[in-house]
Amino acid sequence: MKAGILTIGDEIVAGFSVDTNSVWLAQELLRKGIVVATKASVGDDLEAIEEMLARWDRQLELVIATGGLGPTHDDVTKTAFCRYFNSDLQFDEEYWEVLVKRFQKRGYEIPASNRSQAEIPVKAETLPNPVGTAPGLKFQSGTTTFFVLPGVPTEMKAIMTDHLLPTLDDGEVVSWVTIRTTGIFESALAARLEPLVSSFKDVQVAYLPAYTGVDIRLRSATTGDKGRKMIESAAGKIETLVGDLTYGRNDVTLEEVVGRLLTEQQETLALAESCSGGLTASRVTDVPGSSAYMLGAVVAYGNAAKVGQLGVKPETLQAHGAVSEAAAREMAEGVKSVFGAHWGVATTGISGPSGGTPEKPVGLVYLAVAGPQRTVVKEARLVPHRLPHKAATAQAALNLLRLEIMHHA
Amino acid sequence: MKAGILTIGDEIVAGFSVDTNSVWLAQELLRKGIVVATKASVGDDLEAIEEMLARWDRQLELVIATGGLGPTHDDVTKTAFCRYFNSDLQFDEEYWEVLVKRFQKRGYEIPASNRSQAEIPVKAETLPNPVGTAPGLKFQSGTTTFFVLPGVPTEMKAIMTDHLLPTLDDGEVVSWVTIRTTGIFESALAARLEPLVSSFKDVQVAYLPAYTGVDIRLRSATTGDKGRKMIESAAGKIETLVGDLTYGRNDVTLEEVVGRLLTEQQETLALAESCSGGLTASRVTDVPGSSAYMLGAVVAYGNAAKVGQLGVKPETLQAHGAVSEAAAREMAEGVKSVFGAHWGVATTGISGPSGGTPEKPVGLVYLAVAGPQRTVVKEARLVPHRLPHKAATAQAALNLLRLEIMHHA
Repeated sequence: MKAGILTIGDEIVAGFSVDTNSVWLAQELLRKGIVVATKASVGDDLEAIEEMLARWDRQLELVIATGGLGPTHDDVTKTAFCRYFNSDLQFDEEYWEVLVKRFQKRGYEIPASNRSQAEIPVKAETLPNPVGTAPGLKFQSGTTTFFVLPGVPTEMKAIMTDHLLPTLDDGEVVSWVTIRTTGIFESALAARLEPLVSSFKDVQVAYLPAYTGVDIRLRSATTGDKGRKMIESAAGKIETLVGDLTYGRNDVTLEEVVGRLLTEQQETLALAESCSGGLTASRVTDVPGSSAYMLGAVVAYGNAAKVGQLGVKPETLQAHGAVSEAAAREMAEGVKSVFGAHWGVATTGISGPSGGTPEKPVGLVYLAVAGPQRTVVKEARLVPHRLPHKAATAQAALNLLRLEIMHHA
Repeated sequence: MKAGILTIGDEIVAGFSVDTNSVWLAQELLRKGIVVATKASVGDDLEAIEEMLARWDRQLELVIATGGLGPTHDDVTKTAFCRYFNSDLQFDEEYWEVLVKRFQKRGYEIPASNRSQAEIPVKAETLPNPVGTAPGLKFQSGTTTFFVLPGVPTEMKAIMTDHLLPTLDDGEVVSWVTIRTTGIFESALAARLEPLVSSFKDVQVAYLPAYTGVDIRLRSATTGDKGRKMIESAAGKIETLVGDLTYGRNDVTLEEVVGRLLTEQQETLALAESCSGGLTASRVTDVPGSSAYMLGAVVAYGNAAKVGQLGVKPETLQAHGAVSEAAAREMAEGVKSVFGAHWGVATTGISGPSGGTPEKPVGLVYLAVAGPQRTVVKEARLVPHRLPHKAATAQAALNLLRLEIMHHA
């Protein structure tokens, strides 16, 4: 099945917005074995949209368009589709009632401008939007099926998952897997795996580096069961070689892995964050159900908070400074004790841009984990730029916690 | 000047990675008055890259390519450029020494596979990479200038900002401005502005909604000074109409605005977060220099932490529950007092997916700000999905703080 993705919006063409929708759509289609053959972006422009519909009509079997279904004057997608398909609009009273009630439930009166979203093209089927006001639309033209979805990612994804994907036939499924690693450079990882990887016949390997780790992506050119088996075998061999450096596959996050381990052990967690500034806690609480093991955190940005909230000794700070092995240790043990948790995790470092010295440069960080059996402290020199440093620190802290739970619970 | 952007990487074409680079590049070029005419993506594929170079050579004046300069076997961009430009590679001892020292400084030995990054095409000029190992490359072909940059965003941006942009002439600058608002629905905002916006002659207005607010983007079709003046006048009129709903222009974030207000007042901040789980603190500490006013935060995920760390009365939790106006008030006043801050901010709500009841549904949140003059508590029903709810909660809390500092400091 040949598929195309059309993203619509002035902001996308001009480079004001990141087009994450087409990425997500391509991935979801790939899971179904449908490979996206072409991608295009056009502005909120009637003629440009109609031109793309004409170009792809009968040439592709599946077209998914996103964006431009909002209630304001710059949203012209529905009009463009109606013009191309020569379709009138009809006001849908029933759908309007649904919208009115949804606004009421959140305590608001629905603005009159939302009325346009209840005007449905006569020649389209609608796909319900569980989280927003604009429904998805489906038009058929010979062998080409056109879907139009809102540009707001949550709405697009909800309609796609609930109503669009289930209607598509599975194509010849292409197998792939991502092995997630952290704590090693791309070049070192590649050097370790090179002899193995070069022995693979039909499996492509790509390294995707980020400040939080390197993903190893395996893809097979062979489709179906045979491809799946080849990928599984290759992935298993790589996982054996990388050992503890990998924390999971595909979309799994380190905070989910840590959450699973804590749930299994029925143990609890508390965090003491200095340089990561709350990011670690925010990641832990991104996981649904984390309140079962996450007791809380102290973001101890100043020294007073380290002493007052975490029980770090003033002498320690005076003798070694706030960015030190000793301070990290006392923070982790302190937060563990203050919250009465099984595990205490601490971060203290210099994210920059200021605050560095020749002995303690920007990028330096100490990570500590206090557990039931022992406290471990690790020094690391991470990327010396504020936001990547925060991200890498949170990741390194969660990884140290993962390793400690696995080996010293 | 006609420009094109080529993003290179298997993961981009297959939809595994989000192409944020081309967005950022288009924006930076737009600031210089250079409008991107075309965008393309190809895989890590020698022939496909060479084909694109041939297609754009002499047709465009500026081509910026990103990706595929890493040290591993799947990185073929440099080879493709060398083949197209018929250029040999030369090992650059001096550059190699720079890399060796950079690894040493972070306490690592450089892997042998990084040697390939010191092999420089004879026909290219290099652009230093201040934050990574692969330098940028510049090739000239008649009137077409080709730049090749690494795909890692921080590296690409650093080379672009430090070494590429300064060499480009300013074109005819296109004026635009973004007015950032929060606390109002897109449809309500558009209704309020419609009479004004429909009176604009040469200024386009677009509404860009997100869970954290709606951006209003103004663009002028007229270039140069005249366009700038039209945009400025239109923006001023819109800002008057939206009043306190706007917190700033363009890339400014609410945490930066709050940081600026606190710095001006020489006042300090402490946060008590329940449902936002550390995200508000993380955003506040994203701002360089925030340690001047950010004393710290308590992520009080459990009731014990609310009582023990923040001094919330057990009776309050028993009578009203943790998600209540009374609990939010005590959390804000508690954290203000515990940290000795001028301002205390609290969030408590139900992010879901579980934990909702008919009286207190998922999405409900209480935000509180305790300041020098008064404590204010606000109830809100935000989007009932976990991650958007966290994001909207953090934004609403920072916005309430902004309004309180402006009006009740």
